Amino acid sequence: MKLDPTSADFRAAGHKLIEWIADYIDNIDSYDVLSRVQPGDIAKQFPEAPSREGRDYDALLADFQSKILPGITHWNHPSFFAYFSITGSQAGVLAELLTAALNANGMVWKTSPSLTELEVVVLRWLARELGLPDGLFGMINDTASTNTFHALVAAREAVGLDIRRSGTSGRDLPALRLYCSKHAHVSAEKAGLALGIGYENVVKIAADEQHRMRVEALEEAIARDRAAGMLPMAIVATAGNTSTGAIDPTRAIGEVAAREKIWLHVDGAYAGSATICPELRDLWDGIEYADSIVTNPHKWMFTPIDCSVLYTRRPEVLRAAFAPAETPAYLTLSDTADVNYMDFGVPMGRRFRALKLWMVMEHYGIERMRAVIRDHIAWAKRMAEEIERRDDYELLAPQKFSLVVFRKVVPGDEAASEAATQRVLDAINDSHKAYVSSTRLGGKYGIRVAIGNGATEWRHVEQILSFL
Amino acid sequence: MKLDPTSADFRAAGHKLIEWIADYIDNIDSYDVLSRVQPGDIAKQFPEAPSREGRDYDALLADFQSKILPGITHWNHPSFFAYFSITGSQAGVLAELLTAALNANGMVWKTSPSLTELEVVVLRWLARELGLPDGLFGMINDTASTNTFHALVAAREAVGLDIRRSGTSGRDLPALRLYCSKHAHVSAEKAGLALGIGYENVVKIAADEQHRMRVEALEEAIARDRAAGMLPMAIVATAGNTSTGAIDPTRAIGEVAAREKIWLHVDGAYAGSATICPELRDLWDGIEYADSIVTNPHKWMFTPIDCSVLYTRRPEVLRAAFAPAETPAYLTLSDTADVNYMDFGVPMGRRFRALKLWMVMEHYGIERMRAVIRDHIAWAKRMAEEIERRDDYELLAPQKFSLVVFRKVVPGDEAASEAATQRVLDAINDSHKAYVSSTRLGGKYGIRVAIGNGATEWRHVEQILSFL
Repeated sequence: MKLDPTSADFRAAGHKLIEWIADYIDNIDSYDVLSRVQPGDIAKQFPEAPSREGRDYDALLADFQSKILPGITHWNHPSFFAYFSITGSQAGVLAELLTAALNANGMVWKTSPSLTELEVVVLRWLARELGLPDGLFGMINDTASTNTFHALVAAREAVGLDIRRSGTSGRDLPALRLYCSKHAHVSAEKAGLALGIGYENVVKIAADEQHRMRVEALEEAIARDRAAGMLPMAIVATAGNTSTGAIDPTRAIGEVAAREKIWLHVDGAYAGSATICPELRDLWDGIEYADSIVTNPHKWMFTPIDCSVLYTRRPEVLRAAFAPAETPAYLTLSDTADVNYMDFGVPMGRRFRALKLWMVMEHYGIERMRAVIRDHIAWAKRMAEEIERRDDYELLAPQKFSLVVFRKVVPGDEAASEAATQRVLDAINDSHKAYVSSTRLGGKYGIRVAIGNGATEWRHVEQILSFL
Repeated sequence: MKLDPTSADFRAAGHKLIEWIADYIDNIDSYDVLSRVQPGDIAKQFPEAPSREGRDYDALLADFQSKILPGITHWNHPSFFAYFSITGSQAGVLAELLTAALNANGMVWKTSPSLTELEVVVLRWLARELGLPDGLFGMINDTASTNTFHALVAAREAVGLDIRRSGTSGRDLPALRLYCSKHAHVSAEKAGLALGIGYENVVKIAADEQHRMRVEALEEAIARDRAAGMLPMAIVATAGNTSTGAIDPTRAIGEVAAREKIWLHVDGAYAGSATICPELRDLWDGIEYADSIVTNPHKWMFTPIDCSVLYTRRPEVLRAAFAPAETPAYLTLSDTADVNYMDFGVPMGRRFRALKLWMVMEHYGIERMRAVIRDHIAWAKRMAEEIERRDDYELLAPQKFSLVVFRKVVPGDEAASEAATQRVLDAINDSHKAYVSSTRLGGKYGIRVAIGNGATEWRHVEQILSFL
């Protein structure tokens, strides 16, 4: 029995969906940003079991709209300012449609040469447009957390103890140590958990008043650890911090890493996309020291989730870390190309994610993407200036990229300041007209506004100011 | 500047794409299965840099067809019999279109409640339809390799040495040992590499003549390792082997695992989907012993790649293995639900992959999916019978599920048998009318035919026989 005897229903439903999606995009401003449902509200609408005989697309699209859509928080909304926006785009949606239709698997070159070769092409494009060094090897994985983990598995192999062969347990090995700023993204610690080095061996380095890693504190920690017989394995430097946008001093950290022969991984997951604007490339100052770099086109480069890029100048180490000791017989190929991506990481199956990055870059063009990103940054700056003009508010960090972190101040009363800030945050989010998140810096609770959606205009940012 | 000022171009291009995809599906038989391009052919067509000012959708879709499509190996083709088919479906394509349009991120419940709750609902549905035990916790990740890795990180935590805190190096720990059949999928060894236990500590257990793990060999290996001061950490049992479809004796292995207090992970990535047919549930005999199970709806359950499901009866261990020591301030939420998927694995961002599994199950219904899978198995059986009738061919393994592994035999001459088998395989693949892969069993080289595409009919399978 053929699963899909004809394409007639698909055509009809597909055209309806295209119209629905276009209307959704056109009217995105009219949706609540943040879903109003309570835990369990969505799940309880569904029966105990799926259909026996099947249901037609109209019924399912009706279910989607009535049962599922109310539980969607609209990351597409131009007033989504929480976390980091993962801004998609119309071109990205069309590319994902094609990717799903082809349903190809690029586990090795031969299983769909275009998947591997277009990934190589677009990641070379991207590296050049971001002003990264020549000659980097790139690969796409689902998230920055996954890529940071992969980079650190390579770092573990690079210490030269043949861990791929013999592992870390049952041997007289020193404790492997990973260093990152106390403000580093949680993905560094989570990579440490997955690696099995333990969170006690993820060393959080002190930061300066602008939330940048203090290099002398890093050097002290490394020296102390070496004196205690431990083995420094990797440093994660952040280029565009999650809470503040701060940039760790990559050049000075890189000099330490080079001198100490420690793998340097640079997390540019958020801010990396901004460096398509040449004037913002100080983000990468010292990047030539990086052994690996992560940046997420699915954050601020208009590519639908998931699309996170890992670059490394040491692909041979990445391959050594992940390639099996022997290629299994069922994967032995008579002809193959240089890059079989399955040898460079945990996943074997690979979606055609390069297609959306190609479509986005080609359709919008570099100049338009630059203009959008420059607007986001200009609006963050303007917002920060307006906040600084007010006596009852303060910035908690210097405004950086498209991030603004601020709080309401009740002079001399920290508890009252926090309560007042919380009330403002709640007022914004309870309006369902905008969605912001929070953070804590130096013990102070603040509202965090991150601009990053391709549909955002100044009026959406200005609306946040109206709640202050 | 708005990235997409209007939706007009999207509407026009979207409708064209729906028609193109439907035509592609209708005419899939007319495409070469296996791409004819040589390494570098695809990459060399593209310029050194993406567009500056952007290009319209018609130009990009023309490029797609002329430059990218020739490098696609058509996993959608009904005569794709290599590896394991990852069969998509029309319903799956529509769901992926919606997922891309919503572009939501389910990293925690609040960031889109429907993403978490529908994942919980459909994975409960799936467990019940496959006849798995009640009460399993489920999550979707990209691939079976990723899920096996996640399961084994949990297994490592379950040994009770507080590895999440202190790691495995720099301590006087025994070598951690992982056991799997010598026929196990390479993902088990790759998980060992990623974990940092080393491939020497991935112990390949001998198999019987039907390619099933020999339980007494497993017991001997465990006893020998314990006597040598090593620490058995996990066993990977395979329920539906990649090369042969063989089922390791999960019940007997589970009794060993229970007695020895070793984590049991069951790899049902391929064959698991078949158990929507109640008569095939001997696949799961003894599954109540499993601490974790992986099965891939993107293999044989009509769901576009990527959609691999990890089940565990010990979610608290999975969470302990991956949740950070402290939730970072930028993720602290005032209201949350029980399941925040980011605490259960490496990735933080999460696509709405549950939507396609919901759409596929609901649109086709369980009975239709059963009928398609039963046909695949019946055709494999019929093919195996026809091969067995011939004097010049032999099966290399008992026919199982939708897999047939066979070779041409030149009596008394192994080298000539291999050469003759290779010639048949090349004739099939060089015809570009079908695509099969190969494997090696007991030193014998064989052609491996795996039926799994929703568009396949008996005539496509019969065509393979015409080459023999």
